[in-house]
Amino acid sequence: MILDQTLLPDQEKWLTIENTEQLIKVVQNLSVRGAPLLGLAGIYGLFYTAKLAKDYSHFLILAKEIRNARPTAINLSKMIDQELLKCVNTNNLDTLQEIFLSDAFALEKNLEKESLKISQHGLPVLETNDCVLTHCNTGSLATIGLGTALGVIKFAYSQGKNISVFFTETRPLLQGARLTSYELMQVNIPSTMIIDDAVGFFMQQKKVNKVIVGADRIAANGDTANKIGTYTIAVLAHENSIPFYIAAPTSTIDLATKTGNEISIEFRDPTELNPFIKKCQINSINPAFDVTPEKYITGFITEKGILKPPFS
Amino acid sequence: MILDQTLLPDQEKWLTIENTEQLIKVVQNLSVRGAPLLGLAGIYGLFYTAKLAKDYSHFLILAKEIRNARPTAINLSKMIDQELLKCVNTNNLDTLQEIFLSDAFALEKNLEKESLKISQHGLPVLETNDCVLTHCNTGSLATIGLGTALGVIKFAYSQGKNISVFFTETRPLLQGARLTSYELMQVNIPSTMIIDDAVGFFMQQKKVNKVIVGADRIAANGDTANKIGTYTIAVLAHENSIPFYIAAPTSTIDLATKTGNEISIEFRDPTELNPFIKKCQINSINPAFDVTPEKYITGFITEKGILKPPFS
Repeated sequence: MILDQTLLPDQEKWLTIENTEQLIKVVQNLSVRGAPLLGLAGIYGLFYTAKLAKDYSHFLILAKEIRNARPTAINLSKMIDQELLKCVNTNNLDTLQEIFLSDAFALEKNLEKESLKISQHGLPVLETNDCVLTHCNTGSLATIGLGTALGVIKFAYSQGKNISVFFTETRPLLQGARLTSYELMQVNIPSTMIIDDAVGFFMQQKKVNKVIVGADRIAANGDTANKIGTYTIAVLAHENSIPFYIAAPTSTIDLATKTGNEISIEFRDPTELNPFIKKCQINSINPAFDVTPEKYITGFITEKGILKPPFS
Repeated sequence: MILDQTLLPDQEKWLTIENTEQLIKVVQNLSVRGAPLLGLAGIYGLFYTAKLAKDYSHFLILAKEIRNARPTAINLSKMIDQELLKCVNTNNLDTLQEIFLSDAFALEKNLEKESLKISQHGLPVLETNDCVLTHCNTGSLATIGLGTALGVIKFAYSQGKNISVFFTETRPLLQGARLTSYELMQVNIPSTMIIDDAVGFFMQQKKVNKVIVGADRIAANGDTANKIGTYTIAVLAHENSIPFYIAAPTSTIDLATKTGNEISIEFRDPTELNPFIKKCQINSINPAFDVTPEKYITGFITEKGILKPPFS
């Protein structure tokens, strides 16, 4: 069952996913989202696919469709590839079902532990009276457990650090306004929403003194793909001498991707932008991610500690 | 009569303004907007105020209310101050009415000429195959005539320069998505809308090679207040070695304001941000402008040529 994130915070509606097609649909329309959570959803998807496929070759076709449902976040394709390696030993779909289900349970536990470790390693980054900016949603809704960037923030606050938060609205799909707001209010951290375009203003005014965001794919050299607008925030942080951290599990690091230039960026339907587009036939382009060069990133807060590239 | 810009492009509705209160309302809710146009609206407002005020001292109270209806754009307060100087010679409201009406007509003609001159001086800035980014709306809807930044773009295209345009959606009130799109489509310039957060991405990808935006107030040292997000665009342009121009009449330069630090920034109602705010009681802040330091600005395209500060 998946909490439909497109309806939050208005409605808390759970969707029951029972086949590959349904899974791909909720992945593509962002009912389920967040790099770590997509990896987990993928393995559950393999379980249903193994259960319902006509035969092994049909299973492989469908598995590939899940793998490619969204291109930028590494976790989905990486987890599927990792699971498909198990098919080297058996192509019996009943056996594979059991493997996938047990691996999904294990991953879920592991993600929760990782999340806590990321938060613990991030604790020294935040100091009392810090005002930390975050972008998009990287909390419990995007992961299992506390989250990545938002996890670090929530954990530091729960440990008594008197911090406050600025978060962006996150156009076009408002993951900040809808999801991060929802999570921050549940834990009562003093927080303020701003439009994405106001990030520079509040940095200039010295209202923000740290940035922590998540990641969808980290190249071996440290270049990082994340929600569109992250590169902008990183450049502004650099210009204003504000530390800029990525918080992500090391599974988001893709050693096969040497630099950010190799990361494939997902372009989404321009009608996401706003209702005027259809009416006016405005031409528009809607990239969902951008790549922040490593030089703008102060450090990577992971379950293994705060790391610096190159990764190996 | 004022074209209600809050309803565009859905509806072309004209509002008849007949007293001071109505004028202040349409200025504050942005039915009429754009620094040069606000100056003109202010003088027409003085005419009605002189006509309807009980006496001279009542007139002065109302005139001050118009002057302070919006704090950041200089043109409104500057034009009102300039007209109020005429009261040195007479405080006869009938005489003042005639003066204000005649000055409004004169300003209207002058703004149209200035607009064309700005466009002509901006012509050498744009070259064939340029892709120029603009922000907010600075065209005919914000001025009289062609516009400022958008005027330069439209004029260059009309002169046969094969350019294309990227324009931002411009959160929160979507002046790009609603107004700039509307103007660009009327003249058929190849143009693409992007979210504000995607500016960095397209600069990084070398899809944008020039930036021209307008201004609400230019300090004597060249620091420039303009629509929130302008500072962000300027920093990104600087980082990507892209020329960044301000296009504005010299009346937008405020010699009494020494640097950007002295510019008062208007904070607008946070409910402009989005409908979730009320529901979730998200705390939010909504600055309408930011200040771009002079060091990021390649040049100021004015009716007197392309200038560089300090101004005198």
